[in-house]
Amino acid sequence: MAVHETSMRLKLPIVCIILEVILIILFAVLVTYDDDTDARKWHKELKANRTTNYENDFYYRYPSFQDVHVMIFIGFGFLMTFLQRYGFSSVGFNFLIAAFSLQWATLMQGFLHGMHHGKIHIGVESMINADFCTGSVLISFGAVLGKTSPVQLLIMAVFEVTLFAINEFIILSVLEAKDAGGSMTIHTFGAYFGLVVARVLYRPQLHKSKHKNGSVYHSDLFAMIGTIFLWMFWPSFNSAVTEHGDDQHRTAMNTYYSLASCTLATFGISALVNNEGKLDMVHIQNAALAGGVAVGTAGEMMLTPFGSMIVGFLAGTISTLGFKFLTPILEEKLRIQDTCGVHNLHGMPGILGAIVGAITASVASTNVYGDGMKDVFPNIAEGTFTPSGQGVRQAISLAVTLGFAGVGGVIVGFILKLPCLGSPPDTICFEDNIYWEVPGDEESHQELAQVQQGDVVSPLNG
Amino acid sequence: MAVHETSMRLKLPIVCIILEVILIILFAVLVTYDDDTDARKWHKELKANRTTNYENDFYYRYPSFQDVHVMIFIGFGFLMTFLQRYGFSSVGFNFLIAAFSLQWATLMQGFLHGMHHGKIHIGVESMINADFCTGSVLISFGAVLGKTSPVQLLIMAVFEVTLFAINEFIILSVLEAKDAGGSMTIHTFGAYFGLVVARVLYRPQLHKSKHKNGSVYHSDLFAMIGTIFLWMFWPSFNSAVTEHGDDQHRTAMNTYYSLASCTLATFGISALVNNEGKLDMVHIQNAALAGGVAVGTAGEMMLTPFGSMIVGFLAGTISTLGFKFLTPILEEKLRIQDTCGVHNLHGMPGILGAIVGAITASVASTNVYGDGMKDVFPNIAEGTFTPSGQGVRQAISLAVTLGFAGVGGVIVGFILKLPCLGSPPDTICFEDNIYWEVPGDEESHQELAQVQQGDVVSPLNG
Amino acid sequence: MAVHETSMRLKLPIVCIILEVILIILFAVLVTYDDDTDARKWHKELKANRTTNYENDFYYRYPSFQDVHVMIFIGFGFLMTFLQRYGFSSVGFNFLIAAFSLQWATLMQGFLHGMHHGKIHIGVESMINADFCTGSVLISFGAVLGKTSPVQLLIMAVFEVTLFAINEFIILSVLEAKDAGGSMTIHTFGAYFGLVVARVLYRPQLHKSKHKNGSVYHSDLFAMIGTIFLWMFWPSFNSAVTEHGDDQHRTAMNTYYSLASCTLATFGISALVNNEGKLDMVHIQNAALAGGVAVGTAGEMMLTPFGSMIVGFLAGTISTLGFKFLTPILEEKLRIQDTCGVHNLHGMPGILGAIVGAITASVASTNVYGDGMKDVFPNIAEGTFTPSGQGVRQAISLAVTLGFAGVGGVIVGFILKLPCLGSPPDTICFEDNIYWEVPGDEESHQELAQVQQGDVVSPLNG
Repeated sequence: MAVHETSMRLKLPIVCIILEVILIILFAVLVTYDDDTDARKWHKELKANRTTNYENDFYYRYPSFQDVHVMIFIGFGFLMTFLQRYGFSSVGFNFLIAAFSLQWATLMQGFLHGMHHGKIHIGVESMINADFCTGSVLISFGAVLGKTSPVQLLIMAVFEVTLFAINEFIILSVLEAKDAGGSMTIHTFGAYFGLVVARVLYRPQLHKSKHKNGSVYHSDLFAMIGTIFLWMFWPSFNSAVTEHGDDQHRTAMNTYYSLASCTLATFGISALVNNEGKLDMVHIQNAALAGGVAVGTAGEMMLTPFGSMIVGFLAGTISTLGFKFLTPILEEKLRIQDTCGVHNLHGMPGILGAIVGAITASVASTNVYGDGMKDVFPNIAEGTFTPSGQGVRQAISLAVTLGFAGVGGVIVGFILKLPCLGSPPDTICFEDNIYWEVPGDEESHQELAQVQQGDVVSPLNG
Repeated sequence: MAVHETSMRLKLPIVCIILEVILIILFAVLVTYDDDTDARKWHKELKANRTTNYENDFYYRYPSFQDVHVMIFIGFGFLMTFLQRYGFSSVGFNFLIAAFSLQWATLMQGFLHGMHHGKIHIGVESMINADFCTGSVLISFGAVLGKTSPVQLLIMAVFEVTLFAINEFIILSVLEAKDAGGSMTIHTFGAYFGLVVARVLYRPQLHKSKHKNGSVYHSDLFAMIGTIFLWMFWPSFNSAVTEHGDDQHRTAMNTYYSLASCTLATFGISALVNNEGKLDMVHIQNAALAGGVAVGTAGEMMLTPFGSMIVGFLAGTISTLGFKFLTPILEEKLRIQDTCGVHNLHGMPGILGAIVGAITASVASTNVYGDGMKDVFPNIAEGTFTPSGQGVRQAISLAVTLGFAGVGGVIVGFILKLPCLGSPPDTICFEDNIYWEVPGDEESHQELAQVQQGDVVSPLNG
Repeated sequence: MAVHETSMRLKLPIVCIILEVILIILFAVLVTYDDDTDARKWHKELKANRTTNYENDFYYRYPSFQDVHVMIFIGFGFLMTFLQRYGFSSVGFNFLIAAFSLQWATLMQGFLHGMHHGKIHIGVESMINADFCTGSVLISFGAVLGKTSPVQLLIMAVFEVTLFAINEFIILSVLEAKDAGGSMTIHTFGAYFGLVVARVLYRPQLHKSKHKNGSVYHSDLFAMIGTIFLWMFWPSFNSAVTEHGDDQHRTAMNTYYSLASCTLATFGISALVNNEGKLDMVHIQNAALAGGVAVGTAGEMMLTPFGSMIVGFLAGTISTLGFKFLTPILEEKLRIQDTCGVHNLHGMPGILGAIVGAITASVASTNVYGDGMKDVFPNIAEGTFTPSGQGVRQAISLAVTLGFAGVGGVIVGFILKLPCLGSPPDTICFEDNIYWEVPGDEESHQELAQVQQGDVVSPLNG
């Protein structure tokens, strides 16, 4: 353990406090309430436009925001508790890096598309976008889960949020592609960024911690809390920042049917690829969610319910097959140790989602969208782009995302190799004990006490 | 195990994939976006009626939908995790059959009351109704929990959803009864259907699995996650499809007070019927919810807060007493093995709810409802029915529901006896291991390892 | 055990049933639907003011209500499951006393500020307020957790709700202070009331139950469910009863940033004060929430995002240091056995919140608030108070709250000492078994069986 200075006694406080102080200073200088959040400005608006409080964006978006918030903190956090002795870290580090990332994302996304007169204006929509960006970091966290210190994770978040915001800016503002649910910006980016980081951080001796790299009965149930909350609220995720009215409504519904279809595919394929025909919790926990990822781009479009179901079915199938057949290859041949299988849940379904989005965009027609075209594809409505032009921009956006994720992941991966960041040794990966005070287990102790007394005969009282 | 072909290797994939392909084809042919979800149609509406996006039904109902969704997937799923070694199946099969049922319910309910010009129009209200119908299937699942294969459950869902939709059509559209929270259509139907199926599937040798048919400490805590989410969101459940405005508001509030009162009754009676005056988790997990069931019909009516509290109090009392005194009789005398006690949570409180609804309807007066009568009882408002006529129709609806549940349950029960459906043998009921890859338990393994170092030799079964 | 009549066989049913019957009678006599909930009155309003259903307060507040509801029942309930063998009681008694308190609070708060023509008018806002008052009781529950019977807790709730309502009335209606998120009325009051009760109930022999007064691995994960739901929904808590429009929007956002900042402070300080630099779950579970408490008063004001972050940072720091250094002193010197550390999570951050509120109020200016002043500080807008006058009233409110909590806590503490209330003996505190039927633990039994077969001696590692 000589080379692994894993004590967080000074490192973590220093990093946390410095980062938070920087955030507070930048917020003080740069950030202000937007027109719907500021007392003076909103009341001026109320008077000027004879609008009512109901038109405040809060009522359009806050319920969706809270659903997204649950996905970020409960969904991602508990999904990763499947490891037998990494529950504290899964929920806890998820909590820490999410709390940091949402603040940092407010600034980075604000610089790039929320500036007015030198100030970043924030409200419920920026809060959703900050949570979205955070989601991307948490996906990458899934790839390196169990093998990184909280300081490494915070450093990763600093860079990943920045790159996320630039990539998002290029895709949404420069290329003017659509990606409301983030198939590209969130899922593809987060997954491939994380996978490349994991590749750079490859640990040839990781098998020394192999006995910890798996679930136990109760940890799988905790993970299902994460899965089910992610699954249920994904319709809110994909619809959270689409336009008001039919757009939010349609996106939520498309996602609902995509996920339902995906779930049937996942259960079917999971039983099929198991020698004994048994279901595998890893598939159910993860692949059943791929249907949400895969309609992240096209969900707001007129994908139709059955179209959504086809996409969901494909996503569930690909994802389950990925867990079964691709993950071992990634590890053995490509040396990518993808703890949570983010390639199967976010990577491939994200790419599928980008492709579906490009195809759906390229067949958009006024017959189908009517006046609603201006909400979904404003450039097509205005005649600036043809539908196929929009489709091409969608496809380019996927390529840009993969490029950013790859190059960014390499650079950040090497930064994270700095020995001062306190990564765990190969022998103590997937283990809370290294960064947390872990209590003893009561039953163990009780039995220990009795066992130590010699030949125990008295029954344990419940 | 010769007669129990429990391997799901081919059965489950075939059933899942065939069902999903049929669903996709039927959706392609029959289903389309409704006026609030379709880009063209909504924007036409916006223009024609000078309405605003806020009038989109999404904003009236989506938060309630999400609460209902949580009840279906987390609530029902985790409520059933109380069994010590059936948590994967409880949450997992709940997930599977719910994901199937909501799609199938969209079609079945659409056929019967969502068709316009040969197409089923769907939006957030149909999504809620599909979740409601799914809830009914999950109630029946509770009666047969631990004794059925996932293929049996899917087959049951196919038939039950169909029967549910027909029964619902007769009650709401033919008899024009009111049942917004589904005391009859969801709870009474689901419970008695499931109980009759359980009767047909009676296993005289079930005691061979008796040691698995109970909870352990942590499984009871997981179950409380389900209980509490059901309890909290029941006001949303009952109000999700009532009319906008005072109706949704009043229904939510009546349910809130009914549940609170029910909880006190449950705790009180639970301690009273225990020899040592100790509380029983089974009662708290289940009977405390009966207050939501029992105001499912009358919740939207002018039941008054104290009326709701009386109903809740009765429901909690009946339900707790049912668990204590009736469940053993059902099992021994009537040969109904009701794993979750759905008769106590959904059956009797559902009937109580139907009766309360009939009485409350029969005393409806314009003095009390004013112009709101047209929302709650349109037929009374228009003079088509007298209040007592409405009450009679409510009562007939209960009888119809019991008839459908009984006859349907018998038929479906016998279908589920087909040996090819892979039901578990009597010796391996209430056990995840038969359909799931179950990880070893860390402590077990650790201790096993140590135990094996001593003179203990018999292996722990996983 | 002679002096501890802990059987609940008669006590609990009698108390539950009498209380519920009293509640039902008082509701029958005094409570009625408000204008937004009553069928006749709302439809009259619709007609008279040409308003739409969307203006019904249900749509402004119900999503926030549900979030608050989750905090009360899941948040508080699971937060307290950290104890190894007190999970049933934590979730269960939380459930019981919350279900009682919300009904009783409806009456007590209604008497004092919801009476119209001799009737208490109720709707979604009164439901939120009832949940808020309940929150205060649950905070006090945290101080006495593990050392009280359910009958004691119900008696405590009867008195505490009453005192809460009076204190709230004095602060909000007499002093006309602002406290929408309840830094003073909920958190400071609940914490100090509970601490004083804990002082009166001091148990010198509590060390006899010391081995139960701690967590195990899985119980800490259950507690994190509570923590994370509290953390996520705190923005809804603080904004639930603020004015519509910018006020709700701004309050939610301020709370969001305060909590994020608080979380970084908590992680940093937690590692810093640990000898090995390890994180402590107690801090993460609790102190990370202090940021929500500390903007309970000022959250609706123009605190600015960076101001909120500073407050959150201070709250997380104070709270973590309190757990580390102050809790042992409270126990040893002041004889206050504060099971959950409510002094650190609710007490000190509540006082901080009150001070921040007083300061922020005293610098309010029309430049900043514009016409929005009348929503946040109606008395300043009307010229009745100066900003500094408002600030002074805020400060006086804190003193009043501390006085009520202290005096009330002493009186109620002595009432709770009545031996007939069934408190547990010192040797069986923090133990579900005394009030609950507790199932045996499967693994324990299995292993016990095996252990008994041989003479295993090697110690189990935790």
